[in-house]
Amino acid sequence: MRKQTNPDHGPRGTVQPLALNVVAGGAGFIGSHLCRALLDRGDSVLCLDTLQTARPSNLRALEGQPRFRFIRHDISQPLPPEVLRLAPRITRVWNLACPASPPHYQRDPEHTMLTNVVGTNHLLRLAETAKARFLLTSTSEVYGDPEIHPQAEDYRGNVSCTGPRACYDEGKRAAEALAFDYARAGRAQVRVARIFNTYGPNMDPSDGRVVSNLICQALRGDELTVCGDGSQTRSFCYVSDMVAGLMALMEAEIDGTEPVNLGNPAELTVNELLGHVIALTGTRAPVVHRPLPVDDPRRRRPDISRARALLDWAPRVALAEGLEATCAWFAEELASEPAAAGAAG
Amino acid sequence: MRKQTNPDHGPRGTVQPLALNVVAGGAGFIGSHLCRALLDRGDSVLCLDTLQTARPSNLRALEGQPRFRFIRHDISQPLPPEVLRLAPRITRVWNLACPASPPHYQRDPEHTMLTNVVGTNHLLRLAETAKARFLLTSTSEVYGDPEIHPQAEDYRGNVSCTGPRACYDEGKRAAEALAFDYARAGRAQVRVARIFNTYGPNMDPSDGRVVSNLICQALRGDELTVCGDGSQTRSFCYVSDMVAGLMALMEAEIDGTEPVNLGNPAELTVNELLGHVIALTGTRAPVVHRPLPVDDPRRRRPDISRARALLDWAPRVALAEGLEATCAWFAEELASEPAAAGAAG
Repeated sequence: MRKQTNPDHGPRGTVQPLALNVVAGGAGFIGSHLCRALLDRGDSVLCLDTLQTARPSNLRALEGQPRFRFIRHDISQPLPPEVLRLAPRITRVWNLACPASPPHYQRDPEHTMLTNVVGTNHLLRLAETAKARFLLTSTSEVYGDPEIHPQAEDYRGNVSCTGPRACYDEGKRAAEALAFDYARAGRAQVRVARIFNTYGPNMDPSDGRVVSNLICQALRGDELTVCGDGSQTRSFCYVSDMVAGLMALMEAEIDGTEPVNLGNPAELTVNELLGHVIALTGTRAPVVHRPLPVDDPRRRRPDISRARALLDWAPRVALAEGLEATCAWFAEELASEPAAAGAAG
Repeated sequence: MRKQTNPDHGPRGTVQPLALNVVAGGAGFIGSHLCRALLDRGDSVLCLDTLQTARPSNLRALEGQPRFRFIRHDISQPLPPEVLRLAPRITRVWNLACPASPPHYQRDPEHTMLTNVVGTNHLLRLAETAKARFLLTSTSEVYGDPEIHPQAEDYRGNVSCTGPRACYDEGKRAAEALAFDYARAGRAQVRVARIFNTYGPNMDPSDGRVVSNLICQALRGDELTVCGDGSQTRSFCYVSDMVAGLMALMEAEIDGTEPVNLGNPAELTVNELLGHVIALTGTRAPVVHRPLPVDDPRRRRPDISRARALLDWAPRVALAEGLEATCAWFAEELASEPAAAGAAG
């Protein structure tokens, strides 16, 4: 039997023989990195994913790992019996399941809302039954188009509940509300992370996010598209930092009645990001400007004081370093594109 | 056959032989008045209610009416087949289903959230299938503890999504998001009313609302309880005005892509309300102050410019008049209490 290197300090203070993590959305961008990190520390992982927006290659890389199991499942539907049967062994439930980029989550807004609300509730009930700890990946979108900078967790946000982003933003706010109600009632130990922009390998090239868009356009020699005048700011966190933050939050012995921002507070304009991408790739393609999407936030920057204080966590990977690794990964991905298309044709 | 006095101008412009309204929450305070008004104009009403917080006497008064049918049903569960079978005849779907006072909606916050999100979605799907028009009763609570006064519909609110009121406030915000997504996609014609404080006969004496609390305490000769120092303000709309506003909104030929505030803009402090109640009832009971509940709004007053412009609607019943009618109704209700208890004992 495998040596137990990561005893689980569960709510009952016992050491579990093997920590079993349910990771909903585990085939997605951040989810796939989290699954790998959990496997690397010796845990077992049961990954649930619809594969609706996840890249199949993320999953293929994980399926080769020991202690990994995948079940194709939509969390807005009741959990399958094989998951419920495992409840006595489940120690951690992670909810990373929801398309996160506007073109993806706006494709079926009803499903986006139900994934966030009903899906989160199914996983909270699983955590309650299993006496497992639950972590929700919420989002900086709960702050909407913020009027204060940087955003701390007690800022209540400036979100339109009537616009086209509401299915995601309000879905996540409702999911948070549910999680904290479980916590207040003592039904489950919960952790809520508000994730700010994250980038790195395993992003979906067609995700419509500014980092992946610009890198892929530059690598393909396409026009570089910038929404608005590019003066809006973002703060980009490298994915390994984000996963370390999520794991620190899940394992922290805190009361869990407050959300915790996770992100990189280094703020830059989209134009500055563009400059980095041009420098890294050497592209000479022209830059074209497109209209800003409805309700697009002007500025976004996390105040991570709470994460620093509670988790002793802060991002370590500098933007230049992270972008270089991301460009290298995308270059490899795009290089395999025509071959894959040829093989399929 | 009954003379058709209210032809339904549905999306297809046809005149329906008989307008069939589904009223979820139809046994509740506002719902019961709405059902009666719909019956009075010659419509049929199919009332769905859990009777979780509705007063059974509201329902008994309606069950004597022709063209009224009641089905006990929880809208967070799939709609019963007998409702779905009626879809071809349904012309209007009204969602008034959700406990609306903090002690009631906080009793089972998970159910409150699911009633608002899943329940609203079930009714939206019914409206889509039936090609019926849908109206959501949202709430002034979507503005949270507002920082601007009065509140117009484009104010995004100041809502805590982590506190004990979030199951209701965020549930309603999520329900609005769903409704407007159906509208944008052309799946249903929707109307969203944001209802401000409403009072009148058929309120639940145990609802924990300031009007019913104070009147019942005064009539019983109990201590009069005021939360905080009583300087917080509210705006109270008499229920007949509210029902007229809801019906005007449902029938208005507008594009329905924006919410509409309904309420009375006459603002008064809780202490001023207290003065009215003391004057009306002649109580000499002492006033005691209790701590303010968590996240209790300091001020609340609707800007009803949109309702005036789109619906040509404004409240007509003055507070003194409405309070007098409400006191008279509560006096009758409370008078029957000991007799009922005696009969049961």
